[in-house]
This record gives sequence, C-alpha cells and structure tokens, in this order.
Amino acid sequence: MRIIKIKIPAKNNSYEIKIGSGLMEKIADCFNFSKYTQVYIITDSKVGSLYLEKLKRVIKNTFSDKRIESYVFPVGEENKTLETVREIYKDLVVKKIDRQSLIINLGGGVVTDLGGFVASSYLRGIESLNIPSTIEGMVDAGVGGKVGVNFESWKNYIGAFYQPKTVMMDVNLLSSLSDRDFIAGFSEIFKHGLIKDKKYFNSVSLKKPKQFTQQELIKIIERSCQIKALVVEKDEQEANLRKILNFGHTAGHAFETLSFSTDKPLRHGEAVGLGMIVASKISQLTGLISDQDFSLIKKRLFYVGLPIKFEQKIPVEQVLDKMKGDKKTSDGKIKWVLLKNIGEAGFDFKVNDQQIIFKAIKEVLK
Amino acid sequence: MRIIKIKIPAKNNSYEIKIGSGLMEKIADCFNFSKYTQVYIITDSKVGSLYLEKLKRVIKNTFSDKRIESYVFPVGEENKTLETVREIYKDLVVKKIDRQSLIINLGGGVVTDLGGFVASSYLRGIESLNIPSTIEGMVDAGVGGKVGVNFESWKNYIGAFYQPKTVMMDVNLLSSLSDRDFIAGFSEIFKHGLIKDKKYFNSVSLKKPKQFTQQELIKIIERSCQIKALVVEKDEQEANLRKILNFGHTAGHAFETLSFSTDKPLRHGEAVGLGMIVASKISQLTGLISDQDFSLIKKRLFYVGLPIKFEQKIPVEQVLDKMKGDKKTSDGKIKWVLLKNIGEAGFDFKVNDQQIIFKAIKEVLK
Repeated sequence: MRIIKIKIPAKNNSYEIKIGSGLMEKIADCFNFSKYTQVYIITDSKVGSLYLEKLKRVIKNTFSDKRIESYVFPVGEENKTLETVREIYKDLVVKKIDRQSLIINLGGGVVTDLGGFVASSYLRGIESLNIPSTIEGMVDAGVGGKVGVNFESWKNYIGAFYQPKTVMMDVNLLSSLSDRDFIAGFSEIFKHGLIKDKKYFNSVSLKKPKQFTQQELIKIIERSCQIKALVVEKDEQEANLRKILNFGHTAGHAFETLSFSTDKPLRHGEAVGLGMIVASKISQLTGLISDQDFSLIKKRLFYVGLPIKFEQKIPVEQVLDKMKGDKKTSDGKIKWVLLKNIGEAGFDFKVNDQQIIFKAIKEVLK
Repeated sequence: MRIIKIKIPAKNNSYEIKIGSGLMEKIADCFNFSKYTQVYIITDSKVGSLYLEKLKRVIKNTFSDKRIESYVFPVGEENKTLETVREIYKDLVVKKIDRQSLIINLGGGVVTDLGGFVASSYLRGIESLNIPSTIEGMVDAGVGGKVGVNFESWKNYIGAFYQPKTVMMDVNLLSSLSDRDFIAGFSEIFKHGLIKDKKYFNSVSLKKPKQFTQQELIKIIERSCQIKALVVEKDEQEANLRKILNFGHTAGHAFETLSFSTDKPLRHGEAVGLGMIVASKISQLTGLISDQDFSLIKKRLFYVGLPIKFEQKIPVEQVLDKMKGDKKTSDGKIKWVLLKNIGEAGFDFKVNDQQIIFKAIKEVLK
C-alpha cells in the first residue's frame, strides 16, 4: 500500500490517500472506524450493484457493532443535482444519522462530488471516507476537496471545499470499467503531465491505457495524485496556482454540457480531452508552444483512443456561448489556462483576438 | 466606531466586526468594495422595504461603477429553506454573478443564516458582508460563521461553517424593531452572561431592554460579540467549547419548532428563553446551581418581558420527542449544556434520570 499525505496549510488540516490493490478487503487496516457511531454509504446504481454489499460485509466483519446504512441513486451525471442531494438529506434524517457518523462515498466522480457535498453540508459537515471506483475518481475528483453538484445546465455551480478524512484507492475496483471509461480516465492523467511533468506525459501516453500492468497503474495513479496534491496544498481555494488544474476544462465543460442534449453524451474525460486540444491550439496560435508540440499532443490523445472531434455538427458560436457562462469567467471575460511548454502551464491568460478562439474551437468541430 | 477582530486560527483567517451608529451612511469607511466586480444583496421583504434602497444608494454613491443586484424573499423563519436557497441560486445564475462578486446579507438571523449558506455554496463560495438588522442578528447569528437552513421541521440541519469578510453592525437599524423583537433579542445577550460573565448578566438584566441608551446598547453588543468571538476563536467547528453557546438551545429549538404549527409562533429568542429556563432547572435539580440562582434567572427573564411559559398546552413527551431529533444528540442521547454557576457553563452533560428532564420541561409548560 502506498500512502500520500496531503496537507491543507490554510486549514491546519491533512488527510491521507492510500493506493493499492485489494484494499477493500483490508479496509480495517486503511481506516479506523472505531470512533464513529454509524456508517452511511452513498453510491450509484452501477457501482452499488458491484461493490456495495461487499463493502458492507467487510466493514461489518471488523466492526460488527456499527449500524451501516446506504443510499443508492441512479447512475449518471444528470443525477448530480440538488434534487438528489435533497433526497439523501431526507434519508439521512429518517435514518437518524448523527454528527458522529461517517459518510463513505463509493463511486466515480459523480458520487464523490455529490456525496462530498452532502457530507460538507449535512449538520454543517460530518466526516467522510472516499473510495473512488474509476480512474478519473482516483486521480481527479476523489482528491482535492472540490465537492458539488450541477445547477440546471451549469457544471458544478453549487458546492464547497471540503476535504475527506481519507481516500482509499483500490485498483481492483477498476477491473469493472469498460474500455471507454478506462481510456476517458486517462485524460486527466495526461492533463497532469501536460501542465506539470513532460516526462510523465510521455511515459503515460506511449502505451495504450489498458496495456499498463497493475503495478504500473498504481505508480501512475500515485504520480497523478502527487501532482494534484502539490498544487492543492499550495492553493486549496483556487486563488491562483490551482487554476492550472482547469487546463482543458473551460471548453471541456462546454462540450460536456452540449453533449448531454444529444444521444451521445460525452464522458467527462473525453470532453476534457477535446478541451485540452482547444487550449493547446490557442497556446500554439498565440506562439506559446510550437506547431510540433501541438501536433504531438493531438496525436497522443488520438493514439490512446480519446475522441478528437465533437460528434455533433454545431456552430462554433454555440460553444463560445456556453463557455462564457463558465465559473472561471470574470466580468464576462474568459481567463484561459494555456501551455507554455509541454509540462508547464500558466493561468489567467486573456485572449483578445476572437479569431484565435474561433480557430481553436473549430479544430475539434466537424 | 468600535472594531472587534475575530481570528479563526484553524483556517489562518480573520475578519472584523464594526459596531456603531449611522455606519450604513459611512459604508465606504467600513468596507472596501473596490476589489469586487458586482454586489448582490440578499434580504427579506420586511428589512428590504426599510433599508434596501438606501443601502443600494449609499454603495452607488461611492462606487458608481458597480452593478448592484438584489434578491428579496418573503420574511419569516418558514422561508429559511432549501427552496428559497434554490430560487436565489437561479437568480444568481440569471444575473451572471461571478466569483469576484460580493454578497451582502442585510437582515436578521434568517437572512444571515440563509444568505451565508448561499455565499458558502454558490460557485463553491464567494465573499460576503453581513449587515445584521436585529439584536439577535448582531450578537448571535451574524457572528461566528454558522450558516444554514432548516430541512423540513429540522432546525439548521443543512449548512456550513463559513465566515463573512466583515460584519457591519449599525444600531440605527434597530430603531425599526418592535418591542417584542427587541426584547427577544436580549435573550441571547442573557445567554452570554449566564455562560461566561456573571457581572454582565446582572448589568444587562437589571433594566428593561428598551431603557438602555444607544451608547449603552453599543457597549452591550460589543461585549456579547467579544464573548462569542472568544469562544468561536477557540473552537470554530464546535468540537468542544463552542457547545456552550448552545445553552438553552436544545429545548429552545424544540419549543421553536413546536410553536410553528400553532397560531402563535415564537421568536427564536423567546424559545431560547424557555430553553434556558429548562436547562437552568436541570442544573438546579442535579445540584449544579442553587435554588436561589435558578429563581433569580427565571425572575430576570420574566422581568425584562420574555415569556416563561409555552403558550399551548402540550404533553411533555412531545417536547422530549422533538429534542431527540436535535443535531446535538449522539446515538439518540441528549448532551446538555448546563450551568455550574451563573456565569459559567459546562457541556456534554448526560442526564440519566429521566424524571429530572420531565420536571424541568414541565417548569415551562401550562
């Protein structure tokens, strides 16, 4: 088991990420349940059908005195809403979950985002343990304490900064992922390479995701968590540096949202992949990176199996409109995270030449 | 203008409380608006009709370049709900309020609780300025960063710990309070005396609230804020010491909620007054304080004009049931804040003798 410690200096606070295979069976070694009165597991229908009963059993084996309750909501980003949060509040009240209870979020990014927000706000916050079940959940959503839900068509508009007590990453859980989900998860891994570590970017994009051994995968997840932890420790609330983690997310969120109203909704990672192409193209067109670097990035994303075009034919203005409503705008202006090199990102770039943005978006449109 | 600085050591964070008369007219001296792109005022229909246009005008006078928006919700504790919060989220989105905006909460405890929760969760938190307009809002709800809303009949079940940037207390705003509201606000002031400062308790309960001069009132508010700040600085998240601020609130919340379904809903302060009698009676019956001390407390509350009986005839079991659902219970057991002396409180008392609790509740029942 590999352990990464994350400190949040602004809160005099720290928590641990534990990475390994078969951790769920050894859950009592990873986490101390003894101080809690009750355990409440939040999961979705997909992950719940695979792992919920097992998780209950392993906790019960060691802590037979704990009352274990759970809530399963229908799988899908479209359920990451205040309505689902409200249903869970109601269930928590009915089941008399008190302040000394523990919330476990078992699932992908949707579950850790939504369940984390429930944990942050129920009784003004109760402690939580995250068990991400997807690659994206391990390297991105499960680490860093950004929790929240969508509000109507606006991504993550409602939320908080709320750190879990521990994040337990069991790579065995990844075996149930479809190839598509597995590959989509690598998008955030590439992002970490692109913004912070060129060597890492090269090493994770030279093989197809499914070809890595379990031991290699554990190391990749660890490195990605380290990069994210480094950034989050310096700037939990995203006043400055943390913004680089949004690389690819400005256009990415727009594509993700636009795809929801089509019959082919994108995975978060796939949308971020498209967004990274757009942001890299802007970086090229403004002279920050070379033509070769841009081509290389696009080629690698294509090689591993990420989409490099948005499926539906839509006008560029529609994407631009959607981007302007993003959280990261200030006074209506988009502030971009761009690459200065492969392995180095900068933030708060304003791009005055509208033609550059148009051209970059068109790069991924049909 | 008197200034109290509150530090939240666990968050490396501090904010200021500014107390005086006529501060609203001098708002630019109290608060620096220049860094914000927009200002969004949350208030209720009662306070809004009195002070909203004035507040907009004084901000506009100094900062004519700011866009000032506002949301007015119907007055009343029954509107301190997730539904109101949702309506405000919608309005914030429609009006394109961004992360560099400021939220001003103008009103009593309901407004600062609810508006504070909106500020804590919209875009994962944007900065806020509190302008409490009631005594309770100044000495209690407006200070300390507890924000939240009721969930169905459960008081403050959903919320967060979120500190404003500044709290501006203008005692001129209190002139519009009814006598009933003015007196109810003194309940929290008595609480501060009872749990921390006997001399202060004596000085604030020897005159009727309305008989204090404005200068005396400013000093009283300052002392109450100091006591609250002292406690909150040591324990923002209520792991220990902060619990003493809940003196009178366990039974108080039960009476408050029970009164909502009658035609005579209690003010928060009135309900806390009844709760303080119950907690003081338990303190007497368990031998912590003398019979004389208990009589004195009850006499003083009666003297200033607070109710000392719950209006409706209800069975004691109904109160007990309601209390058991309170946030402050652990594993179904009530943990009491009790007095060891007038001016000194302790927390986490468990009272095993059910007869004592029955007797104490009956003290305020008809």
